[in-house]
Amino acid sequence: MKRPGCWKMLAVAVCMVLLAGLQAQDLQGHVSVILLGATGDLAKKYLWQGLFQLYLDEVGKGYSFSFHGAALTSTKQGQEFVAKVLESLSCPEDVAPERCAELRGRFQQRSQYRRLRTSEDYMALSKDIEAQLQHEGLREAGRIFYFSVPPFAYADIARSINSSCRPGPGAWLRVVLEKPFGHDRLSAQQLATELRSFFQEEEMYRVDHYLGKQAVAQILPFRDQNRKALDGLWNRHHVERVEIIMKETVDAEGRTGFYEEYGVIRDVLQNHLTEILTLVAMELPYNVSSSEAVLRHKLQAFQALRGLHKDSAVLGQYQAYSGQVRREQQKPDSFHSLTPTFAGILVHMDNLRWEGVPFILMSGKALDERVGYVRILFRNQAYCAQTETRWVADQSQCLPRQIVFYIGHGELGSPAVLVSRNLFRPFLPSGSWKEVEDRPGLRLFGRPLSDFYAYSPVREQDAYSVLISHIFHGRKDSFITTENLLASWAFWTPLLDSLAHEAPRLYPGGAENGHLLDFEFTGTQLRFSQQQPEQLVPGPGSAPSPSDFQVLQSKYRDSPLISAWPEELIAKLADDIEATAMRAVRRFGEFHLALSGGSSPVPLFQQLATRHYGFPWAHTHLWLVDERCVPLRDPESNFQGLQAHLLQHIRVPYYNVHPMPVHLHQRLCAEEDQGAQMYASEISALVTNSSFDLVLLGMGTDGHTASLFPQSPAGLEGPQPVVLTRSPSKPHQRMSLSLPLINRARKVAILVMGRMKREITLLVSRVGHEPKKWPISGVLPSSGQLVWYMDYEAFLG
Amino acid sequence: MKRPGCWKMLAVAVCMVLLAGLQAQDLQGHVSVILLGATGDLAKKYLWQGLFQLYLDEVGKGYSFSFHGAALTSTKQGQEFVAKVLESLSCPEDVAPERCAELRGRFQQRSQYRRLRTSEDYMALSKDIEAQLQHEGLREAGRIFYFSVPPFAYADIARSINSSCRPGPGAWLRVVLEKPFGHDRLSAQQLATELRSFFQEEEMYRVDHYLGKQAVAQILPFRDQNRKALDGLWNRHHVERVEIIMKETVDAEGRTGFYEEYGVIRDVLQNHLTEILTLVAMELPYNVSSSEAVLRHKLQAFQALRGLHKDSAVLGQYQAYSGQVRREQQKPDSFHSLTPTFAGILVHMDNLRWEGVPFILMSGKALDERVGYVRILFRNQAYCAQTETRWVADQSQCLPRQIVFYIGHGELGSPAVLVSRNLFRPFLPSGSWKEVEDRPGLRLFGRPLSDFYAYSPVREQDAYSVLISHIFHGRKDSFITTENLLASWAFWTPLLDSLAHEAPRLYPGGAENGHLLDFEFTGTQLRFSQQQPEQLVPGPGSAPSPSDFQVLQSKYRDSPLISAWPEELIAKLADDIEATAMRAVRRFGEFHLALSGGSSPVPLFQQLATRHYGFPWAHTHLWLVDERCVPLRDPESNFQGLQAHLLQHIRVPYYNVHPMPVHLHQRLCAEEDQGAQMYASEISALVTNSSFDLVLLGMGTDGHTASLFPQSPAGLEGPQPVVLTRSPSKPHQRMSLSLPLINRARKVAILVMGRMKREITLLVSRVGHEPKKWPISGVLPSSGQLVWYMDYEAFLG
Repeated sequence: MKRPGCWKMLAVAVCMVLLAGLQAQDLQGHVSVILLGATGDLAKKYLWQGLFQLYLDEVGKGYSFSFHGAALTSTKQGQEFVAKVLESLSCPEDVAPERCAELRGRFQQRSQYRRLRTSEDYMALSKDIEAQLQHEGLREAGRIFYFSVPPFAYADIARSINSSCRPGPGAWLRVVLEKPFGHDRLSAQQLATELRSFFQEEEMYRVDHYLGKQAVAQILPFRDQNRKALDGLWNRHHVERVEIIMKETVDAEGRTGFYEEYGVIRDVLQNHLTEILTLVAMELPYNVSSSEAVLRHKLQAFQALRGLHKDSAVLGQYQAYSGQVRREQQKPDSFHSLTPTFAGILVHMDNLRWEGVPFILMSGKALDERVGYVRILFRNQAYCAQTETRWVADQSQCLPRQIVFYIGHGELGSPAVLVSRNLFRPFLPSGSWKEVEDRPGLRLFGRPLSDFYAYSPVREQDAYSVLISHIFHGRKDSFITTENLLASWAFWTPLLDSLAHEAPRLYPGGAENGHLLDFEFTGTQLRFSQQQPEQLVPGPGSAPSPSDFQVLQSKYRDSPLISAWPEELIAKLADDIEATAMRAVRRFGEFHLALSGGSSPVPLFQQLATRHYGFPWAHTHLWLVDERCVPLRDPESNFQGLQAHLLQHIRVPYYNVHPMPVHLHQRLCAEEDQGAQMYASEISALVTNSSFDLVLLGMGTDGHTASLFPQSPAGLEGPQPVVLTRSPSKPHQRMSLSLPLINRARKVAILVMGRMKREITLLVSRVGHEPKKWPISGVLPSSGQLVWYMDYEAFLG
Repeated sequence: MKRPGCWKMLAVAVCMVLLAGLQAQDLQGHVSVILLGATGDLAKKYLWQGLFQLYLDEVGKGYSFSFHGAALTSTKQGQEFVAKVLESLSCPEDVAPERCAELRGRFQQRSQYRRLRTSEDYMALSKDIEAQLQHEGLREAGRIFYFSVPPFAYADIARSINSSCRPGPGAWLRVVLEKPFGHDRLSAQQLATELRSFFQEEEMYRVDHYLGKQAVAQILPFRDQNRKALDGLWNRHHVERVEIIMKETVDAEGRTGFYEEYGVIRDVLQNHLTEILTLVAMELPYNVSSSEAVLRHKLQAFQALRGLHKDSAVLGQYQAYSGQVRREQQKPDSFHSLTPTFAGILVHMDNLRWEGVPFILMSGKALDERVGYVRILFRNQAYCAQTETRWVADQSQCLPRQIVFYIGHGELGSPAVLVSRNLFRPFLPSGSWKEVEDRPGLRLFGRPLSDFYAYSPVREQDAYSVLISHIFHGRKDSFITTENLLASWAFWTPLLDSLAHEAPRLYPGGAENGHLLDFEFTGTQLRFSQQQPEQLVPGPGSAPSPSDFQVLQSKYRDSPLISAWPEELIAKLADDIEATAMRAVRRFGEFHLALSGGSSPVPLFQQLATRHYGFPWAHTHLWLVDERCVPLRDPESNFQGLQAHLLQHIRVPYYNVHPMPVHLHQRLCAEEDQGAQMYASEISALVTNSSFDLVLLGMGTDGHTASLFPQSPAGLEGPQPVVLTRSPSKPHQRMSLSLPLINRARKVAILVMGRMKREITLLVSRVGHEPKKWPISGVLPSSGQLVWYMDYEAFLG
């Protein structure tokens, strides 16, 4: 499958001959194109036309061609079908009708239909190609197999091609695959593995036809050719948001069989919109014409995507959808589909370029208009000293600044690239893009068209024609590699799984949708702007909802108990911590807070990080109550949890953070490294009287707290402030504040949440001071205050 | 000066009597108001009217009053002046003309003019007040001295009041002071100290009349009464920007004597706009009617202000200004004033609530309109699924969301509070604020008036009337305390100093300004959006400018030398570091970078932090080349510089940051604490072969590098990788990587910048390997690469 160097040299020689003005019909070799599914809709609408365009573009440049339409259809029917399609092929506008007819005639001569069903048929095809080559004295350049067939047929065809239809030595094989490429990560992986058993990675061309759309295909060249102007702009300091949108007015009627299996995320977002996202977000390679560099940078963009969660999405379904499915799929009247026909998704990227910039992906059926675009909106970082009525479009930096790759349809009606005049005058290749004439009255993205430098293609090209040309030229970067495909599924599958049982919001369709589908975000959370107007399925009725309850205050083990629903409980605890911190900072100038690890405090950390603007972090010291003997950056490490959920969102000075020294001299919690003693002396040096202002504890189902475990005496009494202990569960080795040290604190808060804690909560309410059996029972600050925070599930069961 | 408790009890009793329906003209006591400067402009325009208003408001509530107009003017002239002013006083709209005339008559009776020049005059005044009190059998409640006089007269008057005009025991003294309160931090401090020698802090009422403007006075009550709606919105997650604006159409003609001394920053920004800023930004006290709490929170807001630098400001001066100064101040034709009449300032606050939110302050004379407002613009965090033409003002979250405190004038013509209808319906006290009727065609801040809930005062009140009432009621939070005043000057003075010799941009004035004064920001830097159209003073001519030069590459001490102007040099070095980092991460998965401290690398850190989005920080380990033996958070600490200029802007995992352990067991660099050995073993554990990927060094004027000094052998040779050394300059004790360890690096970059380095650069270019004389000459990586980065000043002198 390697192309030998001598052919390259020959090709160079050929070029020289061509440059000398000679006509050399076939010196580049012969290419056979086999269109599988030649009688299908896609073939009829786009692919034959694309092949004809390829023929027109390339036949004068030294290649010869033969085109084999193939399908399961009988030879006669197939021939008739293909003949009809070929008759209707159109030429580019700049080709005269007679010339077009002549070219079409030649293309028809080179094209034929054949039935391909069995492996023998494939062998016969290959023999026929070889015979033709020999007969005409042609060298074979390569073979293109275009799979325009359903995915279940892939394996058989692939096997046959691999076993009997590979071209001879020195010629290439390219197989072109159409989506769907699986249904989730696992199925995509299986499909990819299967295909890999037949084809090399470089032989496979997976089509996402959006990559052939002219405005999309222009994203990277635009970024490259306007590098200087964009260099300082294309980042989180300047970009306010990126919108990647594909709106449809049609619905899924007639296609519900397919649609019900896929839904809008698999149909549009996982592929088209994600591809666009990577083109916008990726680091621009130095050489954008290097497929390898582009693909590598795209893959890096995938790696920077922050994982999605349920709250990253809003889903909708047009009202008529379930009825359509019932009719088309013969479902009972009781059937309600959960398949979304509308989705808004908020994507963030975890890299320095894009951190914090919202990428909004949206697509839906039965919306109010048909339009597709990528819009990069830049922040307004100007103040304009004159009153607004005096602002001039190309001078005022206070008017919106945006770059739009307009994919098509919509008010504009054609692909376009729009750049606000107050940004810069963009460069676009004048051979293929021309300025759009102004259309007074037309407003796009909040501004009149005249506010933009607007360019549209000189010649509108169908995406398939563009891609077929790219296949022929081996431009792999216009296609989806296996790595990219799996990276995309890895990104989307967890979200799809978590949404599988969510009921989408119903919407009436078209202009009737009003503001029902508008959505908004706070941080990484997305929600519809309007409350659901009516509930589809009535709720469980009399079950208490959080707002029915106030925070309750009572007593538990003779100490104050605060109980509430989880959200209120966390809010109250966070408020109390802040109040304690404020008091401590006011009195002593600093606040020493010792935190437990595990999952219970995670919502507390998030609450503190995102809601407590006045928290005196700059004066707060953070200590650990206990630590697992693993490296600090191990996912099991308590410190790592603190880092991920709290530290990275706030600004505590580096020197105020005190991880436990469990990892010294490349060993974990070795006695002789004296980590516990080191921590104790750090505490004693910085914390007055070794008396923390606040210690936050949890309680295990076995009654342990911190890393002090039942039936293990370490840390329950004695002079050592910090101790090494052993946990019954892995990792066994722990470091922990001792009970006596904890009891020196000014305040201890114990947070207990969840149904799992019900039994121990009940038990501990009855026992006395028995720390050896239940270490938690030994928590009793000698001169400080103890407060229990329990949610209703832990407390009421 | 204490008010004894018995008076309070009496007051309570009085109230009870009043409540019983009795009329008690003077049971609350008698108040004497002495208006100093009673014949001045301010008095004529506002103060007498404010006193009359006070009389109207309070006279029925148990107080009696006498008003003493005082000035240097002769008795006769003064009496005539005052009589005329009193005759022209107006009543509130709701008072009938006859009733008004009657009240005015009574007020006139209680008001008289007297000349106050000498201390004897003050003594006489006091005696007269006492005589009157005795004669009428009145108890004295207090005395108000309103200083409407130039500041140079303050001290004498204050001395006289303090020595001879204090009220009797149990009565209060309030002195009211008008700006300017100094010219900078020092003069304000001096003035404050002087005043403190005469008056207690609680006796002084410094007026900033903006605090009496109704829209400004409404900021805190609005925040308080709409707490629930604002709670989640009033922070960096939701606020896009805050604009605090005061535009004037008038210029300084006729006032250039004053103006030339002050300029727009001292005249408007340091006081009015800064006060408004603190009202918007401060943490809202639980009880906004507590003066003490409000003042404390305001002071905290001052403390959170990030320091301004030259680049935080843009300055302008209207074209006619210098001519006006020349005419009015008899200056020669060659005179050009540098006094700004326009300023835009970008303010940031370093707290969790406001971090990153731009506060834009702007004021100027000779602009296109007269208007003042505070505008809080919220981020658009919504995506609206419908096409824009279908958006509805009170439903679409995609339309601008803003809250505006409209101080007055402008298109609206009156004070107002505006809240976008897609935000929330605000609460305003209905007794004093009413909804504004729609005025079709009127657009404010990009939207029709009908897009806002708009409220204006039921009764427009002059700021001085409001403040005089607040003085009477002792509402200190409407005035500038000494602490607040000094905090404000502390904030503004460094900027004023740094701008003192900057030439402001000239602007024609009015609508002619076009976009000339528009400005924009990147990070904390502000600049005019448009290039200066022409240079006022020609530059120094043929001096080379940075863009005239490319980065030069040559040799220095047989190693590659890169030299350029400072900005290009830093950019090149940062690029090279990133390239080295990318290579290291690609090959080894991590990048070990050892950085020097001091001032030279600061621009490099800033460059890396703000321009290198692709830098693999998550895989970078940061080490120190050397450290001063001071605590890590000491301003002298190299680590502290790294933290301030780099670490706080990027996301390096906590565990990848490696400060030198100079501070162990509460001691600095004690040999027995083995800090150097600890650092060496940390390096040896994490850095393969103890060979850093890149070491960044500087060069001292004595030829030292890292903390390796001439004539001090430590670290120049020998087996110790990390050593304690002694610097000739303070702090003497240092920790440093040793020369042998540095020379193990894969790459060493030496950055040398500034004219001061010229001599040593020349010297070192000639010496051989003499590390004991010039430690820098010992830097020669054994198998790595050495590159010198020098700016032209260091290299060419």
